[in-house]
Amino acid sequence: MAKEKDLIKEFNDYRTKMNDKILEDDNKVLKRIFNLDTNAYAEGTLDVKTKELLGLVASLVLRCDDCVKYHLESSYNAGVTKAQISETLSIGTLVGGTIVIPHLRRAYEYWEALEKNNN
Amino acid sequence: MAKEKDLIKEFNDYRTKMNDKILEDDNKVLKRIFNLDTNAYAEGTLDVKTKELLGLVASLVLRCDDCVKYHLESSYNAGVTKAQISETLSIGTLVGGTIVIPHLRRAYEYWEALEKNNN
Amino acid sequence: MAKEKDLIKEFNDYRTKMNDKILEDDNKVLKRIFNLDTNAYAEGTLDVKTKELLGLVASLVLRCDDCVKYHLESSYNAGVTKAQISETLSIGTLVGGTIVIPHLRRAYEYWEALEKNNN
Amino acid sequence: MAKEKDLIKEFNDYRTKMNDKILEDDNKVLKRIFNLDTNAYAEGTLDVKTKELLGLVASLVLRCDDCVKYHLESSYNAGVTKAQISETLSIGTLVGGTIVIPHLRRAYEYWEALEKNNN
Amino acid sequence: MAKEKDLIKEFNDYRTKMNDKILEDDNKVLKRIFNLDTNAYAEGTLDVKTKELLGLVASLVLRCDDCVKYHLESSYNAGVTKAQISETLSIGTLVGGTIVIPHLRRAYEYWEALEKNNN
Amino acid sequence: MAKEKDLIKEFNDYRTKMNDKILEDDNKVLKRIFNLDTNAYAEGTLDVKTKELLGLVASLVLRCDDCVKYHLESSYNAGVTKAQISETLSIGTLVGGTIVIPHLRRAYEYWEALEKNNN
Repeated sequence: MAKEKDLIKEFNDYRTKMNDKILEDDNKVLKRIFNLDTNAYAEGTLDVKTKELLGLVASLVLRCDDCVKYHLESSYNAGVTKAQISETLSIGTLVGGTIVIPHLRRAYEYWEALEKNNN
Repeated sequence: MAKEKDLIKEFNDYRTKMNDKILEDDNKVLKRIFNLDTNAYAEGTLDVKTKELLGLVASLVLRCDDCVKYHLESSYNAGVTKAQISETLSIGTLVGGTIVIPHLRRAYEYWEALEKNNN
Repeated sequence: MAKEKDLIKEFNDYRTKMNDKILEDDNKVLKRIFNLDTNAYAEGTLDVKTKELLGLVASLVLRCDDCVKYHLESSYNAGVTKAQISETLSIGTLVGGTIVIPHLRRAYEYWEALEKNNN
Repeated sequence: MAKEKDLIKEFNDYRTKMNDKILEDDNKVLKRIFNLDTNAYAEGTLDVKTKELLGLVASLVLRCDDCVKYHLESSYNAGVTKAQISETLSIGTLVGGTIVIPHLRRAYEYWEALEKNNN
Repeated sequence: MAKEKDLIKEFNDYRTKMNDKILEDDNKVLKRIFNLDTNAYAEGTLDVKTKELLGLVASLVLRCDDCVKYHLESSYNAGVTKAQISETLSIGTLVGGTIVIPHLRRAYEYWEALEKNNN
Repeated sequence: MAKEKDLIKEFNDYRTKMNDKILEDDNKVLKRIFNLDTNAYAEGTLDVKTKELLGLVASLVLRCDDCVKYHLESSYNAGVTKAQISETLSIGTLVGGTIVIPHLRRAYEYWEALEKNNN
């Protein structure tokens, strides 16, 4: 289980550490963008799970590994199932093309780590 | 109402005409991609509305006006509400940045045309 | 002069009309992003001219014609010279590659329209 | 035949007119990039046809309609067949995903115009 | 020679392991996309070498390191020469701009590894 | 201080080593692009600092970590202040969206390394 925990921990530790430094820098525009990020994924007309899947597919087609990991983890914590993740990733791969496949590999690896880490 | 009908009709007529020509060309890879496009948005673990919103947000962040129009229209026909569209577009704009705003304008215009055309 | 005025007027009229509709929709995330857009280009440590050039080069490499037009017009109004525009566009074309050239053509056309419209 | 001729003529006239204005501006970096563009597609270890197809597929996956038109026209003039164009476009659509399809439609339309215009 | 072998082996081992997991997941859309990938690069009107170069240039301008590696390796195995690779990469760098250069560095490194590993 | 020095040294060593190999390959198009890169950022109507910030924001919105590092380092050496960097990065994040944030984290880390390494 250690390896999976490492993958998750390393991602989150770096993310938290650097987000803190960015926010300490006290740039008003950056602070508001970070703040908006929290707001946009909160329950609204669409529920949290759907919003996380929207964030996930957007991250995948834009080919941002860290963003994909972040939304996989939030999705996992919100109770999204693997089948829902697979369908979302398949739409992203179709829309974004085979260029997306390397990011798909890393997405599957991270989801597997999340599942193993929580068993 | 005429102007809205024109916007919608012009988009769909050109789309249909050229899709037919592409399929007549009988390239196996292209035909299969077109076919997959139909499959991926069919009801699965995720319902059709959610899948259309996934297609919409992916199209918006990739800044493809025609793809946005297509998914707005399919969403409209599947019974998605304007409030759900707005939340989806807002996530896309946050993820994709202000560069997305010109496409957001055209998305709002097309959705309005769909609503007016059906009243 | 009529043709140049039309190019500028058409762009700004549509932009204003649709921005109004988006803001009327009252989506909090979208409203804040629009608001941030005003803030980010205000005088700070960097002056307005430099910030407009930053917005211009970012828009060019991301190949967003409407965004390029917007920043060309703000730059023009802020007193940026054509020579400064040319150097900025040349950096954008080098960084973004020849794929940027069609957008460069439309940028030169819009800048020329701005100059003619104000003489 | 008139309509096809118009599509081709309009594209080339605007392209030539604006390229001339850009070159008159006498920016050394831009002039050299334009110059390189001529060099890169000249016969080398790879023949002109292959190079044009490389330019075409790169333009398609980057979703630049004007660049696609330009390389379709150069390919046509170099004697590339429609079957070679189709295979090239199919690779581009697979790599770039369904987001490429609207550009594929316009590519097929332009190629058809080139064929009709020359018969 | 060990270091080059490692670079190649590590890439291919991870690629194979994760592709297997994705295919085991039994998502129909993903399976068909993977299948199409095999089809599209098979000999047709265009020969395998040309198709691999098309895949390579598309991967480079989209700045996907893993995709570049994959097509460099397939090109190498199909008998493409270094001179043909260089010309293809130079077209990609011109079209995609200097933003492509970091990926160009890694492409040159991987090609060198392929050559050393096979001597 | 060792860790920061490593981050900077590792980036620059690899960059120099591979640039040398690319230039040795003697491809005329690539050599000229590399040469243009030097020219475009030299003092002109715009001063070196402004040009480096233009290169930085273009690199950030195109999400190229190595390009961001390069322009951070050149900016640092040209005497750009942290406040100017922050404003530039905030414009890039607004234009490019939250997808840019992982690259923003690495930009802050590299700038910090530059500051520590020179104290």
